[in-house]
Order: sequence, then C-alpha cells, then structure tokens
Amino acid sequence: MAAPIEFFFDFASPYAYFAAHRIDAIGAKHGREVEWRPFMLGAAFKATGMMPLTEQPLRGDYAKHDWNRLARRMEIPFVLPERFPIVTLAAGRAYYWLAAADKPLARKFALRMFQAYFGQGRDITAPEAVAAEAAPLGIAAAELVAATGDGVWKAKLKEATDEALRRGAFGSPFTFVDGEPFWGNDRLDMVDDWLSAGGW
Amino acid sequence: MAAPIEFFFDFASPYAYFAAHRIDAIGAKHGREVEWRPFMLGAAFKATGMMPLTEQPLRGDYAKHDWNRLARRMEIPFVLPERFPIVTLAAGRAYYWLAAADKPLARKFALRMFQAYFGQGRDITAPEAVAAEAAPLGIAAAELVAATGDGVWKAKLKEATDEALRRGAFGSPFTFVDGEPFWGNDRLDMVDDWLSAGGW
Repeated sequence: MAAPIEFFFDFASPYAYFAAHRIDAIGAKHGREVEWRPFMLGAAFKATGMMPLTEQPLRGDYAKHDWNRLARRMEIPFVLPERFPIVTLAAGRAYYWLAAADKPLARKFALRMFQAYFGQGRDITAPEAVAAEAAPLGIAAAELVAATGDGVWKAKLKEATDEALRRGAFGSPFTFVDGEPFWGNDRLDMVDDWLSAGGW
Repeated sequence: MAAPIEFFFDFASPYAYFAAHRIDAIGAKHGREVEWRPFMLGAAFKATGMMPLTEQPLRGDYAKHDWNRLARRMEIPFVLPERFPIVTLAAGRAYYWLAAADKPLARKFALRMFQAYFGQGRDITAPEAVAAEAAPLGIAAAELVAATGDGVWKAKLKEATDEALRRGAFGSPFTFVDGEPFWGNDRLDMVDDWLSAGGW
C-alpha cells in the first residue's frame, strides 16, 4: 500500500479552500489515501516574514481577483469573510480530536469548516462557532468545545505545525507525495502528473 | 484580429525562463500574437516589499528544488547562476532597441538571454556580456552596447516597468489576456484554458 498523500493546510487559507475540494479526487484516482493535516499558517509566516496576502500591496488585489475567478471556474461559492484572516486554533484542535476516533467524520468536518468560512463568510474563530457549524454532523457541541481546550489536541496541532515548518511548508496548502513537496492549489495538477509519472 | 497576449517578465526571473519556453506555443494555439515585455522586477519588489526568493527562509529552498524539478520535467537545462539575481537593465534596453526594428529577432535575442543566464549560468549584467551573447544572432556588439546607454531605450524599459506596476504586475512572469491578469509560470495552463473558454 502506497503512503498517503499529506495535505497540510490552514482553515483560514483561501487556496486551501479550493484545494480541499480537489485533493481527495486526486488521491482516489491514484489509489492513495489523503491525510489531512491542519496546521497554523501564522507560525510559518513568522518564520518567513510573510504577511497575509490581503495585507500586501498589489498582491492582495490580485489574490482577491484570483479567488473569485477560481470560484467561478470550480463553480463553488466564495466570499472573502469580513474577518480575514483568523486564527484557526479551535477548528484545528477539533479536527485532530475527531480524526483520532473517526477520520471520515473529521474530513466532513474539515470541509464543513471551509464551506462555513469561505463559502458563507461565517467566522469560525471561537470554539462555540466551530461547534455550531459541526452540530449538523452529529458532533456534540460541549464535547467539541472541551476538546479545543484539551492539552492533547493542543499538542497535536502544535506538533503538526512544528512538523510542517521542519519540512519546509511555508504556505497553505502544502502537499507532500512520498516526501516530494508541492506548494499551493496551483500545483495540484502537477501532483496529479507526478503521481501518474512516478516523478521525473 | 484578437489583441496580443502581453507577457511581462524580467530576464533574471527563473519562472519567466520556464514560461518563455511555452508562451509562444500557447499564443499560436489560439491564433494570438504574444507581446514580450521585459520589465524591472526590482521595482515591483520595492512596491510590494518582496525579496528575491533565494533570500527568503524556507521559500528559497523550495524555489531551488522547484526550478530543478521544472527543468527536468520540461527537459531543458537549468542552473542557478552564481550571481543571482542580477539587474537586467542592459538586456531589457537591448530588447526594446531590437524589437523596434525586428520583433522576431528581438524574440530570439530574449530566449538567448534566458538560455545564457539560466541554461548556462553566464552573467548577463554588463552591456558587453549581453552583446557577446547576442553576437551569434548577427547583432552588432558596438550598436547594442550603444543602445543600452541610449535615452530612448532607457525610457522604453522604464515605461514598461511603470505600466506593469500600474497594472498590478508584482511578479514575473505576469501575463495579460485581454486585460485579465495571470501571475506566474504556474498559471500558463490556466491562460491556455482561459483562451479556450473565452474566460469564465
């Protein structure tokens, strides 16, 4: 069994939102599991000195144009949330809490977080907000909120962030295929080609 | 006749080197001319606060890995020149001087500059170095060197740079199709799709 594709992302990353809608299909096409690994992009930005795209002259305007263009092309909704970017500690910790018991449920949760934030523009910073978005999946709100304050899941998210940085993941999404790094939603076609060709 | 595709680039940009090997074929596929427009990426970096990729933590290592990977995939040579990046005023001015009289020759010259710098790692900063690389195309060295000091071609390169910035081109390559902006070598497939679909 081939190793899973590792998909590192931050829930507050628009390009990860788009990639999240494609990565599983690419994995399935090549008989690969996809391991979703939320991490804290802010830590990477500290390491590289980057700022959120929307705060960068020229690049911010292009990014906004590009996100709307990608949404039209993929025929999925996109709104730039009023509060952007946000710190996604709660969603990240909740993800690892869910994934430890039920990976498919954690995946559904992750997509739901993305769709709430970038599809609908609803703030998912607070644990209670994350819990409210997760409720329709049958996830108990009080348990989720408790998990976001639990040292186990705090540590798990921090470990993922440390590992991402150690492995050079300076942006989101950041995908590894058998250790080979691919930065960005832009590179998913290349990930697909790489898997077809077995590298080059 | 449809408007030409506008291809803004800096001769010291590795991603422009790769794109330069593809952009004309994309134009030809869609019956579009491609207008090559060198500009000074350093001016864009000043406006956005960016630094050359190789000077950025984490991003620099990824970029180097990525350039070699792209070269393998496209089966073209690539070396990171010992002196990188460089200021490409001489090549840019010489380009506009040539293009005013003979666009196909200017195109050949541009590809030759890219191949000297990124294919062979030869420094093309000095006007004399540019002239030496251009000589096999039958371009007179003394005339080329004189052109790089001529106010007309200085102004032409500066105008292209100002226009690029005014239109939001913060990176290289930066391609416009009927005004629609596409940043990066990564986006050439999207340029191709956009031309096929007529936008979306």
